[in-house]
Amino acid sequence: MHYALTGAGKRVRPVLTLAVAELFGVRSEPVLDLACAVEMVHACSLVLDDLPAMDDAALRRGRPTVHRAFGESVALLAALGLLNRAYALVAEAAHRLSLRRYTAEDVVHHLAAAIGSDGLIGGQALDLLARPEEMDLDVLEYIHSHKTGALFMAAGELGAMAADARRRDLEVIARYAKNLGLAFQIADDLLDVLGTPEVTGKDTGKDESKVTFVRLLGVPGAQALAGELLGFAVDSLAPLGRKADPLRELAMFVQHRSR
Amino acid sequence: MHYALTGAGKRVRPVLTLAVAELFGVRSEPVLDLACAVEMVHACSLVLDDLPAMDDAALRRGRPTVHRAFGESVALLAALGLLNRAYALVAEAAHRLSLRRYTAEDVVHHLAAAIGSDGLIGGQALDLLARPEEMDLDVLEYIHSHKTGALFMAAGELGAMAADARRRDLEVIARYAKNLGLAFQIADDLLDVLGTPEVTGKDTGKDESKVTFVRLLGVPGAQALAGELLGFAVDSLAPLGRKADPLRELAMFVQHRSR
Repeated sequence: MHYALTGAGKRVRPVLTLAVAELFGVRSEPVLDLACAVEMVHACSLVLDDLPAMDDAALRRGRPTVHRAFGESVALLAALGLLNRAYALVAEAAHRLSLRRYTAEDVVHHLAAAIGSDGLIGGQALDLLARPEEMDLDVLEYIHSHKTGALFMAAGELGAMAADARRRDLEVIARYAKNLGLAFQIADDLLDVLGTPEVTGKDTGKDESKVTFVRLLGVPGAQALAGELLGFAVDSLAPLGRKADPLRELAMFVQHRSR
Repeated sequence: MHYALTGAGKRVRPVLTLAVAELFGVRSEPVLDLACAVEMVHACSLVLDDLPAMDDAALRRGRPTVHRAFGESVALLAALGLLNRAYALVAEAAHRLSLRRYTAEDVVHHLAAAIGSDGLIGGQALDLLARPEEMDLDVLEYIHSHKTGALFMAAGELGAMAADARRRDLEVIARYAKNLGLAFQIADDLLDVLGTPEVTGKDTGKDESKVTFVRLLGVPGAQALAGELLGFAVDSLAPLGRKADPLRELAMFVQHRSR
């Protein structure tokens, strides 16, 4: 669990949780716990994605994947343990925050929705089961708005809820985060083509025939789509004014990454 | 997820949750949800246990295991989905119950403790990593009081918390359930020896050399230990008087099963 969590990742999701809570004026230990829980869920999904039954990847974040380092059965237990610990942390953090607008159940519910069969798991299932010839832009967007977008959305929402943000502000953050997440995934596809394992710290796994945004749209098309999504993300922040500037910078970071 | 949940299991864990809540006077939909969540966690653990990297089992509850029926990657996602849904259900149920003595966080915490590295996952990890020559009765008891006992304990505790039982009654139930769980596991080992796949609905997997209670103690020794644990379980119910009779009957069911 520790190895899976402490690779040289970018921590974009927990940074998003922290940045959102802070723009609404809250910076505290329970918020940090929520951010860690989000990263644990992400780490869990990476451990599973890398398994032989999935992408069969040897490298992740510049190191052997968890199952290559510790064996498959330990990797499975570590993934399960990470998800489990994430929920314990979220429930505890929500309790300690004792919010006015949101119950602990609201917080857990938003995380569970992001992970479940209408979120990360659903996206991953379709990714595994869809035949390459069925993969058009709509299907690919569905897959990645669930595989990646949903957890980005929850990362933002948890930050907003931790700060007792108003419901309408929560929706603003959700819209921003979902578009940011999808753009981030496209940037990832671009890096798989334009980067090298030395830079990205991962290999592409066994599935060379995987359908990606770059494959469907070409490099310039994928860059344009990422730019468009980041535009949507930033536009949706307008109601929050200048205090949302850190989120605009985060979008710039993803944009920069996509080039 | 549905296939994994709807095999011909005995539902001992959710029955325990329901029976405990009912003996404290509560029978309601949120309690049923808690019971279902416990069974989901159990189903999740079975799906993972059966995988090629674990026990590599072909049969479970009289049908092909989930990965044999749907492939390994779908089995992984289903297991993750079951655990995730369990937490969503537990948080929602705890919220709806709005208890006096326990917070939603207490309820989630008890479940997470049962599953985590000091519970089911810890027991399973030691089971995988311990060398056969290290396996004495203490190690085996540690493994199974965590692999099986911990979730039995949580099943009972969730039922007690759902009924707003006093802390001291919660402890009574925890002691009962933990011993019941360990006895249940020994009964399982006995059935693996005395039963046939037609009766038990499962095969023993690839690991014929697996150290079990029966292997360490022989059939009569294992039966005696199960009987002793069930005695502890039933004795611990004394403070609850006659209203705990359904739990005594559940112990009888496990005892009967062990013969």
